[in-house]
Amino acid sequence: MSVIIIGAGISGLKTASALYKHGAKNIKVLESRGRIGGRLQTITGFDGIRKYDLGASWHHDTLCNDLFVEGVEAGEKYIFDDDFFIYIDKERGRVDRDPEMKLEIIDREINKYTDMEYYQKLGSKDVSFQELASRYLFEKRKYLTDDQIRYSAQVSRYLELWHGIDWKQLSAKDTYFGHQGRNAMALNYDSTIDRIAKTFPSEIIELNTEVNSVKQDNNKVVITTKDNKKYVADYCVVTIPQSVLELSINESAKNETGRIEFDPPLNNNIQNGFKSVHYGGLGKVIFEFEKICWDQNEAKVVTLAKTSSSFVDAVRQANTFDDLLRYIDKDNSRMITRDCWNQPLYFNNLAKGLDIASFMMLMQSPLTEYIESIQNDKDKVFKFFQPVLDSVLKSLGGKPVVNGMSDLKQVFEDDVPVLRNIIVTNWTQEPYSRGAYTACFPGDDALDMIVALDRGQSSRIRFAGEHTVMDGAGCVYGAWKSGQREADYIADRMNLK
Amino acid sequence: MSVIIIGAGISGLKTASALYKHGAKNIKVLESRGRIGGRLQTITGFDGIRKYDLGASWHHDTLCNDLFVEGVEAGEKYIFDDDFFIYIDKERGRVDRDPEMKLEIIDREINKYTDMEYYQKLGSKDVSFQELASRYLFEKRKYLTDDQIRYSAQVSRYLELWHGIDWKQLSAKDTYFGHQGRNAMALNYDSTIDRIAKTFPSEIIELNTEVNSVKQDNNKVVITTKDNKKYVADYCVVTIPQSVLELSINESAKNETGRIEFDPPLNNNIQNGFKSVHYGGLGKVIFEFEKICWDQNEAKVVTLAKTSSSFVDAVRQANTFDDLLRYIDKDNSRMITRDCWNQPLYFNNLAKGLDIASFMMLMQSPLTEYIESIQNDKDKVFKFFQPVLDSVLKSLGGKPVVNGMSDLKQVFEDDVPVLRNIIVTNWTQEPYSRGAYTACFPGDDALDMIVALDRGQSSRIRFAGEHTVMDGAGCVYGAWKSGQREADYIADRMNLK
Repeated sequence: MSVIIIGAGISGLKTASALYKHGAKNIKVLESRGRIGGRLQTITGFDGIRKYDLGASWHHDTLCNDLFVEGVEAGEKYIFDDDFFIYIDKERGRVDRDPEMKLEIIDREINKYTDMEYYQKLGSKDVSFQELASRYLFEKRKYLTDDQIRYSAQVSRYLELWHGIDWKQLSAKDTYFGHQGRNAMALNYDSTIDRIAKTFPSEIIELNTEVNSVKQDNNKVVITTKDNKKYVADYCVVTIPQSVLELSINESAKNETGRIEFDPPLNNNIQNGFKSVHYGGLGKVIFEFEKICWDQNEAKVVTLAKTSSSFVDAVRQANTFDDLLRYIDKDNSRMITRDCWNQPLYFNNLAKGLDIASFMMLMQSPLTEYIESIQNDKDKVFKFFQPVLDSVLKSLGGKPVVNGMSDLKQVFEDDVPVLRNIIVTNWTQEPYSRGAYTACFPGDDALDMIVALDRGQSSRIRFAGEHTVMDGAGCVYGAWKSGQREADYIADRMNLK
Repeated sequence: MSVIIIGAGISGLKTASALYKHGAKNIKVLESRGRIGGRLQTITGFDGIRKYDLGASWHHDTLCNDLFVEGVEAGEKYIFDDDFFIYIDKERGRVDRDPEMKLEIIDREINKYTDMEYYQKLGSKDVSFQELASRYLFEKRKYLTDDQIRYSAQVSRYLELWHGIDWKQLSAKDTYFGHQGRNAMALNYDSTIDRIAKTFPSEIIELNTEVNSVKQDNNKVVITTKDNKKYVADYCVVTIPQSVLELSINESAKNETGRIEFDPPLNNNIQNGFKSVHYGGLGKVIFEFEKICWDQNEAKVVTLAKTSSSFVDAVRQANTFDDLLRYIDKDNSRMITRDCWNQPLYFNNLAKGLDIASFMMLMQSPLTEYIESIQNDKDKVFKFFQPVLDSVLKSLGGKPVVNGMSDLKQVFEDDVPVLRNIIVTNWTQEPYSRGAYTACFPGDDALDMIVALDRGQSSRIRFAGEHTVMDGAGCVYGAWKSGQREADYIADRMNLK
């Protein structure tokens, strides 16, 4: 009896670990990359000491996250970094907790408005979050001040940094979601990955082994790798990202790296699933400084997309919501030139909690694709973000950055932020990830795909990963649970339990 | 065709208004008190200018509150006074938005923990909110700092000032609830009451007319007043508070003021309803000052109940949750001596938004009963609250109160808070209200009563009021809607529609 697991991300590793524990001996994990961990990847900074997670960084839903509990018991470190937010507008500076605007309270009302639209009514059409938030502003303009109309939806856009896509692409229905308790930052996820990988013999994992086809032949599954090696197994668990799996249903993607040819092709449920789910592009830029010379009491700063008073006029003067939509469409098209103030960006001040002189910035698609595409030109990346970075430093009582990526070695006075390095992620550019994780566009319903993959291609060809679960969808612990699920399924059928 | 409505609160007035609009001519509203409005009551302060609502003050759920929308269209004034909170601990001073303790974030987690316990699981036993919050602290102590254990549940206790009962009495299941949008303070509810009362001839209302019995005689209802006047009507709508209605099922309350004898007695559904619903005692104390000499930027201050480090020790050292419960029971019994620091109190700073030099303080049962019972001894009331009042003033950058209720006329320097008057509510002492509004004790489910009263005693004897509706339960707009509901029901049966 044998099982081939495709992908050594956390779901593949957990599948192997759980199967091994069930007594299965003939297991292989085939991994395209030269490393394990998948979209969990811990690296060190310029000083060889600081550590960052380029992929997932957080344990979400910690009131019901068994992976978190297991990790804590195993001695893995974390910090609860949920915190209050500083919001910065380009012209106005800090706008958080403003006693007149009370933007956080309006954000909560936009949340509730969305909730009432999609979860307390039937038949509401899903639109983009930009459209729904704008409709709120239009419908409730009588009850909102000019400043609230101007800034409140920009605060709500912070959610873009959860979904990894911007509000024009984002499903309004999917925008807000519940958190089952606090979020804890993992320190770092490499310890989790290593711990799980150590629960079974290391020979089980084959690195640098890209799979090209998965063929079901009666009760056997034949897996062929890029270098034409063949594995014949009783079961196969496919844990590649949804974005890579999507290549399989696309004939014109035949020559794309990472694509797996399924024979027979992926079943109809799965093919239909792709019609109602998309993929996000959360990316990160890490700004490493010489030392901390800003406030360590505040962890979270969001720079808001710039606004104009003409938007307020448009909201006030529109006779119908369609009038306002026409203004917004025009305004969107003016935003085509890339600018660091075109979208919200979220800066995690690692000086609070971790005592590290770095900011971990989160960005969303389509900006991520652009920044990741210029990642090798670090000076260009720095210049792009310098205005927002300086405003973040200012909001934390710091001075502007004194150097760029071209003059890293210069010597400066003591209390100024001296940049030492910039690290940019690569998820949207990398053929084995092709983005970050599942995201919903207007009209999507990720449930179709989740149900289809949970059922599997067949009883022999199974799936695991963040895109195959309901509870913990898009999260590390969700991926991990899906590995357990598939191991249990197979062990049950193999009479191992 | 005739209708008798018992009670000229907003539900009774709305019933009359809607029936009149439907074309009913033979309507009477019988009101025990010498005024209309019921638990909506606007009074003026010491200067004859400032206005306060002693009963309900807010329009809740303004995203779906039709009474609010109607009032705004009619020109009635309001302010959205939802705001950030200042939390004050007796020893530690301000503990809100503390960068280390982050109590608001723990409060949110307690909310989610409660939600998971009762709305994501089946069969969880309802307990007091004190017990459930303490269980959270015990179960999650590993993930909480000492300060978080000490203060976070005290912050969550702010909800007592929504329910009007303290956390030992309060159903954990019922503690947290959703808000459908912001809350708006009415300025003032007398304009709403007067507007509705003006929609029908004033002769319809009979003040100072207490009803003693309601008897159904075939298709007629015979209503007898205290001074033995008899009304014979086709329909009767009973809008007295749930607390007063409860006297009707209690033989030993036969001689209580306000009690109505029903013949036949209230039906079984209603009698059973009383087994699973209770009544709260939200009360108010208004502190009127000469002029504003404190921060006008912050609207909401909560003084927390005092804590001790021994509670943290008890949480840390308990082997089982029962151990901790025993400690808590003992601690509760030490709290019998009344003290202004024994429970959270909520101070609305009317200087923000309204520019009025007063604080409107909200208190809960059982404190309300005590304070309302000593309301005539204003100096005693002042001395009871002076410590919290001074700490509220301090948190707003003000000085302590310089005078008491015994030396009101003295002259003081300019920038000190000079007390001019104290106003205390009377709801728990007054026979026609006997408290504030519906509240749930552990194990309660208000739905039984709501369904029973919505169905009515019979097709002839109907009910309206905040205690008879699901959406808007406990709220002014809920009471108002219930009046419309009963008017529509009767109009339909009388073929008026």
